[in-house]
Amino acid sequence: MKINTSKAIFEEPLYLESGRILPRYEIVYETYGKLNWDKSNVIVITHALSGSHHAAGTYEGERKAGWWNDLIGDNKAVDTNKYFVICMNNLGSSFGSTSPQSIDPDTNEIYRLKFPVLTITDIVKAQISVLNSLDIYRVHSIIGGSMGGMQALCYAIEYPEFSKNIIMLASTAYTRAWAIAFNKVTVEAIRTDVDFKNGYYDSADIKQNGLKGLAVGRMAGHISYLSPSSMDDKFGRNYVDKDGLYELFGRFEVERYMEYNGYNFPYNFDPLSYVYIVKTMNIFNAARGNDTLAQSLNKIKSNLHLFSFSGDMLFRPEEMEEIYNVMKELNKKNVSYELINSDYGHDAFLVEVEKFEKQIKEILG
Amino acid sequence: MKINTSKAIFEEPLYLESGRILPRYEIVYETYGKLNWDKSNVIVITHALSGSHHAAGTYEGERKAGWWNDLIGDNKAVDTNKYFVICMNNLGSSFGSTSPQSIDPDTNEIYRLKFPVLTITDIVKAQISVLNSLDIYRVHSIIGGSMGGMQALCYAIEYPEFSKNIIMLASTAYTRAWAIAFNKVTVEAIRTDVDFKNGYYDSADIKQNGLKGLAVGRMAGHISYLSPSSMDDKFGRNYVDKDGLYELFGRFEVERYMEYNGYNFPYNFDPLSYVYIVKTMNIFNAARGNDTLAQSLNKIKSNLHLFSFSGDMLFRPEEMEEIYNVMKELNKKNVSYELINSDYGHDAFLVEVEKFEKQIKEILG
Repeated sequence: MKINTSKAIFEEPLYLESGRILPRYEIVYETYGKLNWDKSNVIVITHALSGSHHAAGTYEGERKAGWWNDLIGDNKAVDTNKYFVICMNNLGSSFGSTSPQSIDPDTNEIYRLKFPVLTITDIVKAQISVLNSLDIYRVHSIIGGSMGGMQALCYAIEYPEFSKNIIMLASTAYTRAWAIAFNKVTVEAIRTDVDFKNGYYDSADIKQNGLKGLAVGRMAGHISYLSPSSMDDKFGRNYVDKDGLYELFGRFEVERYMEYNGYNFPYNFDPLSYVYIVKTMNIFNAARGNDTLAQSLNKIKSNLHLFSFSGDMLFRPEEMEEIYNVMKELNKKNVSYELINSDYGHDAFLVEVEKFEKQIKEILG
Repeated sequence: MKINTSKAIFEEPLYLESGRILPRYEIVYETYGKLNWDKSNVIVITHALSGSHHAAGTYEGERKAGWWNDLIGDNKAVDTNKYFVICMNNLGSSFGSTSPQSIDPDTNEIYRLKFPVLTITDIVKAQISVLNSLDIYRVHSIIGGSMGGMQALCYAIEYPEFSKNIIMLASTAYTRAWAIAFNKVTVEAIRTDVDFKNGYYDSADIKQNGLKGLAVGRMAGHISYLSPSSMDDKFGRNYVDKDGLYELFGRFEVERYMEYNGYNFPYNFDPLSYVYIVKTMNIFNAARGNDTLAQSLNKIKSNLHLFSFSGDMLFRPEEMEEIYNVMKELNKKNVSYELINSDYGHDAFLVEVEKFEKQIKEILG
């Protein structure tokens, strides 16, 4: 499978949900497979908080494949021999698309905290621009988990004719207080780090030395991505071999895992970008702009396929069930819901692909 | 109800589980009610992580009563007209007992990181010294929730003749990875705060200005004390009135709650003390010193009464059930277990006293 990386540059404004305007914007993306003659084989993959457009395949010299490589590829459930698959780096994210670290053309300075607050609607709108620039006005399917699932649902509601199928995993129609609380820890950990300098840090320095506040905040995030039983299975009460039980900073294996994932993260992800992205998740509410969630969901014409995971502590199964129930109350026929039994927690949508790849293959047809 | 505050000073060593020695130590404590002639009416209250010996009553000018004031007092479930109730500030805690901020008599300097790692066993051992100094060698009941429940269980196993009744709420026989992970966020948030200075901060300065790392860490703690549904009930998706939805640092009500509880905490609790106390919780394992948990529990002679709360996300009901099941497999008759239906989360043992006060009154007889 060949990976094609591109950047779409728009020298025209993006009108944001907040009323603010991005005078210009750029979106980087990857594609796999070939667009067919009538452009009927397009699958859009929407990525989560810390993900990027690098959804599948492995670059030369790269240690780890794209984040959904188990799902996407030649002869895989999302078959790149058959489909033209595109994954775009979210607006505001720090893997090459326009973000708080971009230059504000009005001032020729880095936006930093002057970057506008984005919403899931804005992120999707920018993606539609990219697709339109490729002469794509309707797609076969949109697949996303977690924050990617919010985007998938947003497509379904705001662009009812755009996709035949919407596949949404481990996500929600509106972010609950519990998830907002985890994000809060991260945002406060970042803000209180003296090296954050209220957003006026030197990006090159942070890329080289990391930002401890983001590391600590990311550790909180990792709790929400797992579950009590997945942690029991993964770590139990194992203590790090060379650490002493009565050493104050001696560690359990779970602590080493958190240190590893926490402290490595800021080398790859910009702190300001993180603050902006979690904001889009916190304020995501599929009912906004309508009186009720039912009014929003009533607009959906795509086939909506919902998957939740029983051990998901971040976006709990009942949140996905609510979408299904509202759709059923609306007498919508084009909806399916599956609760997948999993102890893995939220991360199941990334690591337990074997539990839903068959279903996705079947949906794609 | 009169509050008596005292301090027990021991000019003799405390031999710790780690093999280290505290050459001298002090424990502050409160008592309520009167010790009867045969000293048969003593109830020991063991406190949790952020608690103190101030379990009940209100001091003159004090805004808030002791932390279990709903349970303890004249004519309350733990009736101070009838019982002599004592609550001791845990060794290592920062409300007056010997802690990392105490003077090491060997060097005449503050211990700081040279303070020995403590265990629940050590905390209980110091409490027994206090009780013995009052000529108390056996008590009527010991009652504790969360980390206080660990202490109660420790009494039951290590001092089988010491208490007629042990009442343990919202706790565990050994701390699981999930709880250790929450503590990890706090410890790392403290350690990475530049003002922590690897423990060599100026305590007076921290008391006046707080420590942001501890504040952020405490926010993570507050997530584990609540539950998804308690947060939904308490905060929903309500946004702070004067904050704008598209302001980057605009807040949901849950965020304001976390800021309030997080940022106020370090004015009342010493960061080093916090690190030491969570360590005692992390390494708590009632099976330690024996081959199995069953071997430990088999030593119990007290009546053991266990209460868990259905929504407890920190110490889950199955953790309390395990203790009950092992006791039953051992054919122990002196054990009861009640799962209390509650959406409140871990904090239920503090705030939903009405759900278990009747049962406690009945146990006390």
